[in-house]
Amino acid sequence: MITAHQADPTEDLRRERSQASFPSRELAALMAGGEAQLKLRERIADAVRADPVFSKKGKYFMERADLYRTTLEKYLALPRLATAIDPNDPITVGKIIRELIDEPGGLDLHLGMFIPTIQGQGDEEQRKHWLPMCTKLQIIGTYAQTELGHGTYIRGLETTATYDAEKEQFIIHSPTLTATKWWPGGMGKTSTHAVVMARLITHGRDRGPHAFVVQIRRNEDHQTMPGVTAGDIGPKMGYNAVDNGFLRFDHVRVPRRAMLMRYSKVDPDGTFHPPPVAKASYGTMVFVRSDIVMNAALYMKKAVTIAMRYNLVRRQSNPGGEKASGGVGQKGLELQVIDYQHSQRSLFPILARAFAFHCTSDFMRRMYFRYEKVSTRKGDFSALPELHATSSGLKAYCSWATKDAIELCRLCCGGHGFMMLAGFGTTFGNYAPNATYEGDNNVLCLQTARYLLKVARAVAKAAARGGDVRDAEEGAQGTSAYILEGGGGLEPGCQLGKSVGLRDTEAALGAFAHAARRQILAAASRAGTLGADAAMSRDMVAWIKAAKAHCAYVVLLNFVDAVAESKPRVSSATAAVMDRLVSLHALATMDDNMGDFLEDGHVSADQAAAIRAEVAVLLAELRPDAAALVDSFALDDYFLNSALGSHDGDVYRRLYDEVQSAPFNASHVPPGYADLLHSRLIKGAGRSRL
Amino acid sequence: MITAHQADPTEDLRRERSQASFPSRELAALMAGGEAQLKLRERIADAVRADPVFSKKGKYFMERADLYRTTLEKYLALPRLATAIDPNDPITVGKIIRELIDEPGGLDLHLGMFIPTIQGQGDEEQRKHWLPMCTKLQIIGTYAQTELGHGTYIRGLETTATYDAEKEQFIIHSPTLTATKWWPGGMGKTSTHAVVMARLITHGRDRGPHAFVVQIRRNEDHQTMPGVTAGDIGPKMGYNAVDNGFLRFDHVRVPRRAMLMRYSKVDPDGTFHPPPVAKASYGTMVFVRSDIVMNAALYMKKAVTIAMRYNLVRRQSNPGGEKASGGVGQKGLELQVIDYQHSQRSLFPILARAFAFHCTSDFMRRMYFRYEKVSTRKGDFSALPELHATSSGLKAYCSWATKDAIELCRLCCGGHGFMMLAGFGTTFGNYAPNATYEGDNNVLCLQTARYLLKVARAVAKAAARGGDVRDAEEGAQGTSAYILEGGGGLEPGCQLGKSVGLRDTEAALGAFAHAARRQILAAASRAGTLGADAAMSRDMVAWIKAAKAHCAYVVLLNFVDAVAESKPRVSSATAAVMDRLVSLHALATMDDNMGDFLEDGHVSADQAAAIRAEVAVLLAELRPDAAALVDSFALDDYFLNSALGSHDGDVYRRLYDEVQSAPFNASHVPPGYADLLHSRLIKGAGRSRL
Ligand SMILES: Cc1cc2nc3c(=O)[nH]c(=O)nc-3n(C[C@H](O)[C@H](O)[C@H](O)COP(=O)(O)OP(=O)(O)OC[C@H]3O[C@@H](n4cnc5c(N)ncnc54)[C@H](O)[C@@H]3O)c2cc1C
Ligand SMILES: Cc1cc2nc3c(=O)[nH]c(=O)nc-3n(C[C@H](O)[C@H](O)[C@H](O)COP(=O)(O)OP(=O)(O)OC[C@H]3O[C@@H](n4cnc5c(N)ncnc54)[C@H](O)[C@@H]3O)c2cc1C
Repeated sequence: MITAHQADPTEDLRRERSQASFPSRELAALMAGGEAQLKLRERIADAVRADPVFSKKGKYFMERADLYRTTLEKYLALPRLATAIDPNDPITVGKIIRELIDEPGGLDLHLGMFIPTIQGQGDEEQRKHWLPMCTKLQIIGTYAQTELGHGTYIRGLETTATYDAEKEQFIIHSPTLTATKWWPGGMGKTSTHAVVMARLITHGRDRGPHAFVVQIRRNEDHQTMPGVTAGDIGPKMGYNAVDNGFLRFDHVRVPRRAMLMRYSKVDPDGTFHPPPVAKASYGTMVFVRSDIVMNAALYMKKAVTIAMRYNLVRRQSNPGGEKASGGVGQKGLELQVIDYQHSQRSLFPILARAFAFHCTSDFMRRMYFRYEKVSTRKGDFSALPELHATSSGLKAYCSWATKDAIELCRLCCGGHGFMMLAGFGTTFGNYAPNATYEGDNNVLCLQTARYLLKVARAVAKAAARGGDVRDAEEGAQGTSAYILEGGGGLEPGCQLGKSVGLRDTEAALGAFAHAARRQILAAASRAGTLGADAAMSRDMVAWIKAAKAHCAYVVLLNFVDAVAESKPRVSSATAAVMDRLVSLHALATMDDNMGDFLEDGHVSADQAAAIRAEVAVLLAELRPDAAALVDSFALDDYFLNSALGSHDGDVYRRLYDEVQSAPFNASHVPPGYADLLHSRLIKGAGRSRL
Repeated sequence: MITAHQADPTEDLRRERSQASFPSRELAALMAGGEAQLKLRERIADAVRADPVFSKKGKYFMERADLYRTTLEKYLALPRLATAIDPNDPITVGKIIRELIDEPGGLDLHLGMFIPTIQGQGDEEQRKHWLPMCTKLQIIGTYAQTELGHGTYIRGLETTATYDAEKEQFIIHSPTLTATKWWPGGMGKTSTHAVVMARLITHGRDRGPHAFVVQIRRNEDHQTMPGVTAGDIGPKMGYNAVDNGFLRFDHVRVPRRAMLMRYSKVDPDGTFHPPPVAKASYGTMVFVRSDIVMNAALYMKKAVTIAMRYNLVRRQSNPGGEKASGGVGQKGLELQVIDYQHSQRSLFPILARAFAFHCTSDFMRRMYFRYEKVSTRKGDFSALPELHATSSGLKAYCSWATKDAIELCRLCCGGHGFMMLAGFGTTFGNYAPNATYEGDNNVLCLQTARYLLKVARAVAKAAARGGDVRDAEEGAQGTSAYILEGGGGLEPGCQLGKSVGLRDTEAALGAFAHAARRQILAAASRAGTLGADAAMSRDMVAWIKAAKAHCAYVVLLNFVDAVAESKPRVSSATAAVMDRLVSLHALATMDDNMGDFLEDGHVSADQAAAIRAEVAVLLAELRPDAAALVDSFALDDYFLNSALGSHDGDVYRRLYDEVQSAPFNASHVPPGYADLLHSRLIKGAGRSRL
């Protein structure tokens, strides 16, 4: 009856790999952008693992100060290593090293926001002045926009920069408690400088928020500058290697040229010149959001790799019992947890979605570059509204899904998933704020919704004119073109499992398009002639839901397209697996939101049941490839940093060994033992042994 | 345009309270079990707040050792304070103090499992020996069941207790790595003793897991006993004031009487006497689960109190704009975030559900006591299968919902919700394992499902016999009686919004019953004549879903009944609010799972739309009572321990003041500054000011 010790997790994982139906290396190369890219990544991971300064040993046991310091050390060591690996392209290598380090630190805002803002918004002289100091870390900056009282509503920022023409200075001031800058990363302790978003006031007039470079700490000794109060906002649910901070100004004077003047300008006499074009910077936001979607894919991959590997080696209950996907377990051995259907139903759709997000991020990036080309070369900005709207929604859709996926992966690992050594805790903690920063997800969905309302209205107008709804096309570009289709109320029902098979991706796409279109048009019709603000405000929940349905369609569209595009380049075995992933993604997403498809009868009850059944069939088909599929993400053990998710599957040995060095085990008594416990326990001596 | 400083959050919350439609105190008293109980709770909270040892100041900034120590201190100070407050009933007071402390600590397993196990499973002599030492803390114990390799599958435990008749001793041994005890709370450092679940072996035969009291550390100096290896398993995603531990035995000998012998016995010669009845202890599990559901209600209340208060005072965007519930905001002031419909749609259903879970836990407790009475007095155990099955599912259903609610509440608070000072981080971290321990949720749902399958089969059998399906009644008791109803395939469609209003709770209950019954009967029909194991294994996802649908029905049933029962005792204003909460709970739950109601046409598309619209109406009706409703939970600021959720609404002042003492702010430079940053930054001096 003692069964567990007969099982060998490393052997389990080896066997699982050997039974895969496709070569995982091939898929890995495809995902990485080619075998050379994959090799480069492996070489970088080897180098990082070999360098003690990058070690993650003991990381999960670290208190905040150590976590901060060791993360900073890694960032400081990065340029040297990147250059050593590839002197010709240290930037690309550096990006990969940062991904491997997988911990935002005190320099993140300096690299990710302070430098880019000066690059983007500083004039040439300002760039020349600041950037060399930035790259040498002679100054460290942050980006201080959010205040205690304002995040989403930037126009409500309260910090002021009042121009004093006499002295040619701005007076930066925090007039209220809620004007306190709050949240900027690296502002707590690390930074000497900040780009401060402050309400510019010249000639007594409020010109709205502008960017100012302000020194907040002295280079000599890191003391705050006169009039500046700054500090750390304390621990958060994650992100604790970053010193998010607060910052207050008491009439701090800075020279006129502290204002970044590439677009807006203030003359010495205080004359204000507004920026020539406002929306030009929206393109950058699209790029940033494609990055967030890329990260969504990455963290989904990470979580599901850990959970899948552990579910493949964890054996629990039902020795020799029946497996979900058919057959029975090995005699005397408990079932691998992945052979319970609920584990498969949780993990395999996450796996598929990770691929889908990967393709979506690729797509967004390509769209961005295409837009950049036509907008700069031909001055054609027409793609921007759709691009901007869809990328807003995708940021929200993908970051929500990823956050939830990380948590579901953890739950699939039972108690051990709750240990920090499993890796889910920090993954969730560091990932979760993606739903909030760079635009709160609900607010972003409403931006998408506003665009969808506009398109719906254009469609209605064209239809009312009796003309072809394609006249509305200018409003419905790219991924939103589907809104124009089937608008005549004569749409046939979904054909999945009827005239076409359940795995027909065109029919699935049609169903997603139909569900999104139906919700958009219904909400638009409820809106009547209301202004967009009022329409959003009265029917906000429905609009957010419609935006999500739109994004679900776009993700599937990108996934289908990407797979179709890459299938010719891979073996038929790999192509078959990719087809299964697309179908699983489509059908499981439908199953999860079946009400949206059933409501107007587009999908019938029989079809719903058939879709559910087909999901089960797909789970069974994908089961033998579970190990190989997560291998194809090619995530290095160093990156994963998980006792449950390592490549070799040796989970119990690793858990046991790693906890031995937990700080609590440095002493054999607990904190407070002498004061609190000893005097009581000593009285039990003698009688306590029975 | 500078608007925030004109707003005063404390004034906002005062105004919100004054506009409530009902007296929150009345509802608070009802929830607490009467005005006297409410006053007692207030008196206890006052006393706890006044005693410095109970202070939570700085708690969110504490590293693990301090968190452990200060929590232990509180537990040690508890008996004295409880006795001071009410010398006649320190136990009841102590329970409330523990709830207020709101942090599981090193003594939790001693109090919650070690003592109760000895009480329940020890014979009289054993109880007399151990319990006095336990209460004086001369020994501290834990409950060591889970091993590195086994959680759910208790029969797979590997630790052995082999009887040596010659020496009249058991030899406790960990034969494999996976046999290492893993997880027991307080085992890491605190405990001197453990109830160890080990596989009893007598006369060469394996008798399955039994409980043994084993000393693991010396009373004199806390060193581990010979042959014992023990330590802490390191930090977790929460629960870090508890020293969950690991434990290994190398042939450790304990006397025969170390085995708890109330039921099973081993004679000196090794003769084994199995326990007389096996299932008697199931009643206790029902009680423990009612406690978990009670806690689900408590933590839902906690999270929604914090989020609701913050959403009432947080103002963001749309100055003077249109509110979801009608009307426009005050001129020049941004909208309170709660006036965005998505905030209401997120928070109000959680609010309603907290009430529903509260009633469900009450119901379970009453059922348990009724069962205890009839089972002990009349030897009638017939209610047990239903009680056990439903309580398993409810534990899962309520703990999942609560875990997700905490996270959703956090998300509704934007960036500030991510700060530890908001309170969501520890609330989630400490609550989350409820989905895993005391039975993994999916496994528990399958226990419920097995019972539902049995009932469905009894119904089918009765129907096949041509008899009244009521013949199957013995199988379908209490909350599962609904499965007998409407089985003839002739059920009329849902009447909500047709022959009865949308707020008709009987019709809503009917819809919940229908959806659960349909799923149960469909899964049972797919199972055909398969054994229960095979049926569960092949169709696991559907069975888990059916079990959840059953639980959703039971929760609504309890909520409806409890409100009906208490309405005569409250003012009509309060009764009206309670009715709204029931309707919102019913309709929002339907809306969230509409596919289950639409699939077989029980609810039509028009009804689905009407239900959604009615949810929006209910949100608007409940909006003026938002502050008063969370007040009626009567959660003390000390318990909430949240800068965002305090009773006075003074969030910005509190955030700002509290972060000043964050440990990172003790020094004006970051960790590692001298080594890592100074030499670089000093080079920027002079040029860095522009
Ligand atoms: C880990 C982390 C790091 C950060 N780093 C930085 C940084 O480096 N620099 C920096 O400047 N900031 C930073 N931030 C702040 C971040 O940008 C803000 O948290 C974000 O902009 C959201 O604003 P808020 O927190 O004020 O939420 P709010 O805007 O107050 O939102 C609260 C709620 O109101 C709702 N809401 C608000 N407005 C509307 C509307 N118009 N319509 C409908 N609903 C609405 C939201 O959906 C949300 O539910 C960081 C935040 C975090 C969590
Ligand atoms: C904070 C915390 C405190 C704890 N404290 C204690 C303590 O004091 N003492 C103690 O003894 N233990 C303790 N535990 C351990 C806890 O009891 C176990 O984690 C729990 O029993 C689940 O077991 P597991 O972790 O081995 O998960 P597993 O059983 O390995 O489950 C892993 C996955 O397999 C699935 N699965 C397993 N069996 C089946 C089945 N038959 N059918 C379908 N699916 C199945 C589960 O649903 C889950 O998805 C604690 C755990 C935590 C997280």
